[in-house]
Amino acid sequence: MRMVDLIEKKRDGVELSKDEINFIIEGYTKEEIPEYQMSAFAMAVFFQNMSDDERAALTMAMVESGDKIDLTAIEGVKVDKHSTGGVGDTTTLVLAPLVASVGIPVAKMSGRGLGHTGGTIDKLEAVTGFSVEITSEQFVDLVNKNKVAVVGQSGNLTPADKKLYGLRDVTATVNSIPLIASSIMSKKIASGADAIVLDVKTGAGAFMKELRQAEELAKAMVDIGNNLGRNTIAVISDMSQPLGFAIGNALEVKEAINTLKGEGPSDLMELCLNLGSQMVVLGGGAKTLTEAREQLEEAISSGKALETFKTFLSAQGGDVSVVDDVSKLPTAKYKIDVQAKQSGYVSEIIADKVGVAAMILGAGRATKESVIDLAVGIELRKKIGDYVNQGEPLLTLHSNQENVDECLKRVYESYKISDEEVSAPTLIYKEIR
Amino acid sequence: MRMVDLIEKKRDGVELSKDEINFIIEGYTKEEIPEYQMSAFAMAVFFQNMSDDERAALTMAMVESGDKIDLTAIEGVKVDKHSTGGVGDTTTLVLAPLVASVGIPVAKMSGRGLGHTGGTIDKLEAVTGFSVEITSEQFVDLVNKNKVAVVGQSGNLTPADKKLYGLRDVTATVNSIPLIASSIMSKKIASGADAIVLDVKTGAGAFMKELRQAEELAKAMVDIGNNLGRNTIAVISDMSQPLGFAIGNALEVKEAINTLKGEGPSDLMELCLNLGSQMVVLGGGAKTLTEAREQLEEAISSGKALETFKTFLSAQGGDVSVVDDVSKLPTAKYKIDVQAKQSGYVSEIIADKVGVAAMILGAGRATKESVIDLAVGIELRKKIGDYVNQGEPLLTLHSNQENVDECLKRVYESYKISDEEVSAPTLIYKEIR
Repeated sequence: MRMVDLIEKKRDGVELSKDEINFIIEGYTKEEIPEYQMSAFAMAVFFQNMSDDERAALTMAMVESGDKIDLTAIEGVKVDKHSTGGVGDTTTLVLAPLVASVGIPVAKMSGRGLGHTGGTIDKLEAVTGFSVEITSEQFVDLVNKNKVAVVGQSGNLTPADKKLYGLRDVTATVNSIPLIASSIMSKKIASGADAIVLDVKTGAGAFMKELRQAEELAKAMVDIGNNLGRNTIAVISDMSQPLGFAIGNALEVKEAINTLKGEGPSDLMELCLNLGSQMVVLGGGAKTLTEAREQLEEAISSGKALETFKTFLSAQGGDVSVVDDVSKLPTAKYKIDVQAKQSGYVSEIIADKVGVAAMILGAGRATKESVIDLAVGIELRKKIGDYVNQGEPLLTLHSNQENVDECLKRVYESYKISDEEVSAPTLIYKEIR
Repeated sequence: MRMVDLIEKKRDGVELSKDEINFIIEGYTKEEIPEYQMSAFAMAVFFQNMSDDERAALTMAMVESGDKIDLTAIEGVKVDKHSTGGVGDTTTLVLAPLVASVGIPVAKMSGRGLGHTGGTIDKLEAVTGFSVEITSEQFVDLVNKNKVAVVGQSGNLTPADKKLYGLRDVTATVNSIPLIASSIMSKKIASGADAIVLDVKTGAGAFMKELRQAEELAKAMVDIGNNLGRNTIAVISDMSQPLGFAIGNALEVKEAINTLKGEGPSDLMELCLNLGSQMVVLGGGAKTLTEAREQLEEAISSGKALETFKTFLSAQGGDVSVVDDVSKLPTAKYKIDVQAKQSGYVSEIIADKVGVAAMILGAGRATKESVIDLAVGIELRKKIGDYVNQGEPLLTLHSNQENVDECLKRVYESYKISDEEVSAPTLIYKEIR
């Protein structure tokens, strides 16, 4: 087999066999196939797409390129959730204890990563003492005991995907459905998921701006998962504005605690109940989504979900007193209200810009070397559809610097106010299975 | 400017500016743009094509990437001829003295290259003493004096094209009309051509198997030439079977001499008169193709063309006595007739296979290190449309080895004989200007 012939086949729209795809990914991982052949291949895939069989083969080839996490020692169906990413997405912090509280194991592997805010691990570190430095054995034991634990990403998972993603980033081949879908699914499968719930975001603040694109990606991932024997479903949810009110690490922990108490923002609560029900059904905890939802609502109202969160935090060294007294979380020095310059209905909140504004305050990492300030961030006060009077706060900046000019400029640019009444956007567009 | 953005633009079908194309080719030549970005770009071009302006800009950027030959010291319009390549193509050996004999300067730069037979220089070295080791000054003086000289390729011509061609070869991006056309045209322009006659081959033995593809390539090159101020015309000629009878270095020199005497194969003679007339008109030696053709026919019948060939050979150290006595050319030890296994009409001669058979005998180079045997090769005895009796020779192998089994197998595979009458293929399909 020669790589040049396989590039030509793909270029000409001929379907590649499983063996051919394995040859490509193995050769690329071992650096026997050079970057310049792989980038030409990726561009050919961009134009010629991949069949369902090719997508499944590519995903498994990337899984096989590195270590695989073995979660068989954990009892029950391990259901993982993945979000394609947005601004102010606090769902994992809520979902993990919520779903665990009704008996579904949540064995969460998480990273730090770059972005507007930190990753799940950074956020949880806003709780004094909390640590993900636990061994694989401790991780398995904790999930079996408490149904929930979070550990840092370890091992050499899907190195082919890492290498290919880096290459796609500089060769204009990121935006290809089969490549995006196999990249995400390979990581989930290598992490040991038995079943997968995907939260595919759409709208101005998401990677997939158009619903049609989001649907296509969701369908691609669901098909890969199901073809590879992992029960997979996707929910397409709105990211035309940030989710919930909080964007920032400690701010999101506080919001998650409020949500687990049943006092969170309605959109965050609704999305968590929706995704959580899917997880409970896939995990075998309920026969129908309605039944699952009832369990989750009961777990919130009875305090069981909040209790599970405490148990989880304390098992990994966290100071659980923050749950009852959120003022113990890191707090920024300045709280600066940003006032509306005119009265009217909020018609748009450009999520990306608000996210970047939060990053400028120090809530996220621009580069691997950036140090996160857990206390800072942005708290939205008005969302799309809300009426605001001139001078009323649109949002509050939580900052440790007095000068927030750069940040202010961006948040003002991100809010549009209209004289005409505007309705709140649909939160959940579709479910794809 | 960032290469990734330019790849994306091309990927999305947006036209690139001259500055953007210069940025790409300059960066690539200086190795500031890595191979993996260039190959993704080439694949995007494969799918999205290039506009006329982009093609012209790409060609000039490749010309500017290295040295340019200055032929201004040569009087007259320097008309260059280029063939897209085939099997047994002896045209250059005939055309150079023929066109020079009617007063059009032929300043030929030539290479050795890989292929079924050697390049023009290898072929001419079958004449004892002939050498292309002359200085630029000698070259210019010879062309001014005799109207014809041949020199080896020197300098660092179109390094961007060399680098890109090597990359395309291993990334399945060779077969792209804008990339092929700009590659050929950049080399002609960097070599100092004022006007260009292109012989674009089509048929089973050519790179462009289909007439439609050949036309597209011809039109692309003609447009680039004319857009860049070089009068360019293309002739589309047949390569469904080898041209003339001879495939091999000394064999082709002998065939060229016969043709200059007016005794050559009719297809080779006709193609040389056609291409030669185009060159004479572009060179300003005649107003019409008919007038030019009359001049060339007269040069053959009067012996002037043959005389010019002698002057040319002798000026570069060659033993001109071979022209009057072709038996002085290198001769192979064995002449092996290959007999028809059945009677009938020759319906097909797979030119590629015959070419490879000649290479196996030692007529061409498979790698840069191969040593050419100037004496060996293949002489066709029957061409498409000819009737052959069982046992009559189809062709004669000129070999220095007694065992020619491997060669025989291929030549037998290449000939197809039919019971039904077959007409000879059209030689010249089209002229594109």
